[in-house]
Amino acid sequence: MTSFASVHAFEAALANLRDPDAGAAADARVRQGELTKPAGSLGRLEDLAIFFAGWQGKARPQIARARAAIFAGNHGVTVHGVSAFPPSVTAQMVANFANGGAAINALSGAAGLELTVVALDLDRPTADFTVAAAMSEADCLDALNRGAAVVDADLDLIVLGEMGIGNSTAAAALCARSFAGGVAGWVGPGTGVDGHGVARKIEVIERALAFHIDAPRSAFETLRRVGGREIAAIAGAIARARQLGVPVLLDGFICTSAIAPLAAENPAIAGHCIAGHCSAEPGHTRLLDLLGLVPLLSLDMRLGEGSGAAVAANIVRSALAAHDQMATFAEAQVSASL
Amino acid sequence: MTSFASVHAFEAALANLRDPDAGAAADARVRQGELTKPAGSLGRLEDLAIFFAGWQGKARPQIARARAAIFAGNHGVTVHGVSAFPPSVTAQMVANFANGGAAINALSGAAGLELTVVALDLDRPTADFTVAAAMSEADCLDALNRGAAVVDADLDLIVLGEMGIGNSTAAAALCARSFAGGVAGWVGPGTGVDGHGVARKIEVIERALAFHIDAPRSAFETLRRVGGREIAAIAGAIARARQLGVPVLLDGFICTSAIAPLAAENPAIAGHCIAGHCSAEPGHTRLLDLLGLVPLLSLDMRLGEGSGAAVAANIVRSALAAHDQMATFAEAQVSASL
Repeated sequence: MTSFASVHAFEAALANLRDPDAGAAADARVRQGELTKPAGSLGRLEDLAIFFAGWQGKARPQIARARAAIFAGNHGVTVHGVSAFPPSVTAQMVANFANGGAAINALSGAAGLELTVVALDLDRPTADFTVAAAMSEADCLDALNRGAAVVDADLDLIVLGEMGIGNSTAAAALCARSFAGGVAGWVGPGTGVDGHGVARKIEVIERALAFHIDAPRSAFETLRRVGGREIAAIAGAIARARQLGVPVLLDGFICTSAIAPLAAENPAIAGHCIAGHCSAEPGHTRLLDLLGLVPLLSLDMRLGEGSGAAVAANIVRSALAAHDQMATFAEAQVSASL
Repeated sequence: MTSFASVHAFEAALANLRDPDAGAAADARVRQGELTKPAGSLGRLEDLAIFFAGWQGKARPQIARARAAIFAGNHGVTVHGVSAFPPSVTAQMVANFANGGAAINALSGAAGLELTVVALDLDRPTADFTVAAAMSEADCLDALNRGAAVVDADLDLIVLGEMGIGNSTAAAALCARSFAGGVAGWVGPGTGVDGHGVARKIEVIERALAFHIDAPRSAFETLRRVGGREIAAIAGAIARARQLGVPVLLDGFICTSAIAPLAAENPAIAGHCIAGHCSAEPGHTRLLDLLGLVPLLSLDMRLGEGSGAAVAANIVRSALAAHDQMATFAEAQVSASL
């Protein structure tokens, strides 16, 4: 089943975004005011419950089925030495995911998430985007649809993540092309390059942006020119989740960068998304600010593979448990105030 | 079984603090460097795993048994109108805990914590500490021991919390008496008093500190003069947990205030404690800074009853799951670097 039959279908989906159920969200807000606690004292847990009520269309939302979907891709831009790890690590880590040995295996298990790993043509890296579009139209559309395919309609939450040696360079390029301002503010150490590596990443991205400067500025064109398969898949999953009303929990900088070209076209696209955490990668804070997202966690994590978002899924579970299970002042016969 | 047979025994416990197992912590640090991720990329999750290794004395620590212990007390200082709720709410909320209807019931359930609620002589509020010591020596020692009694030696983690109408005033008084500086920086809205209420709290605390100004500055004397039963119980639980090597997860301002007089006597007392979250109550940030604790969560929560710490227990579980379950580079045959 193909979610986006054409580039036009994808762009049309971005132009016509579903709204949350305002009535269910309002009912949840009323309920929060009736529960046995001072008004507002559960802070962001209250906001999460109301957010989920809106997207699930019921005043007492639940997380019965939640999935972490991790997408992996390889990047032609690694020929420029932008990563501390060789590209072969992408496939090695996908094998590690399959064997249950990676952080996301442990963290999705701890959060009660199904784990789906999608390796996108690892033996066929994207093109070096300093001299060509990273992907053909067909390849990028395929990646969008493979991302969309993981979003089952009966999911109550989807956690998105990525793995791809070199992809912090693609993420920075996507942000720089989507928003005004220079390249340097989007570039950090990624998985661990030094200062020379950061300078090399900036220089590579500046060349890429110059190469593609006259290309159309649509979300799709930015994704296919300076993105990567795993990032396009995340963009497809985000767009599909919006069609289905499934809330999205975003991971770190690279995962969140998938939404940058979409938000440049329609800022409302972030409306069904929660920032799971703020990564140590410096561009992430800037990106979250531009998207109007406030991260749930700030634990100096910078691993990717959905790890920060998977930890944040526990916060969502706690929020919905309190919202659903607490007694009201009337039920508990507790005095609401003096 | 009485943990602290006398005031002297409690003060002696504070003077002779157990150290963590440095060898187990070092082994855990080595293991973190071998797991399939860039070094340091799990951020504070790595620190938590090493911290628990030290206190549990094993390189791969576990949370098999964890308890949330919530202490409730009533406060004579409420005669001065320092709370937006009547003192009868303390007992009503204890009944709500027993019936499973409070936030901590839902949140401890979501985090896999046993829940123990200890109501401390609710029908016998502490004395108004502006004109007397809040507790007699015997009452304060009893509260310390009732707190210590919840710390079973086989617990892998204890989460501490409180409930007590008026206790944000006692907490601010404890902080102001334990550390230099004025009263105003320790006083906030608590469960919801307005600006006039805050001014009243400041004035009440200033009178209390003046009344007790010539009394001894020991941890015990500060607890019994301007504390409360539930806060003294938390102090007893913290001291007992240190004797047994059980890591403590602290909740918000009032819970953390229990450690203020202890830390004024021996700053190393906070060494087995983790700050679960940063409360919206303004004194909490200041107190955590003085204790050298960095909160795991910052979710604008200000409910008390262990709620923020219970949510943070999920972060601890995630940290230890990753530490224990992840494969090493050698096991997974992943290249560690270029």
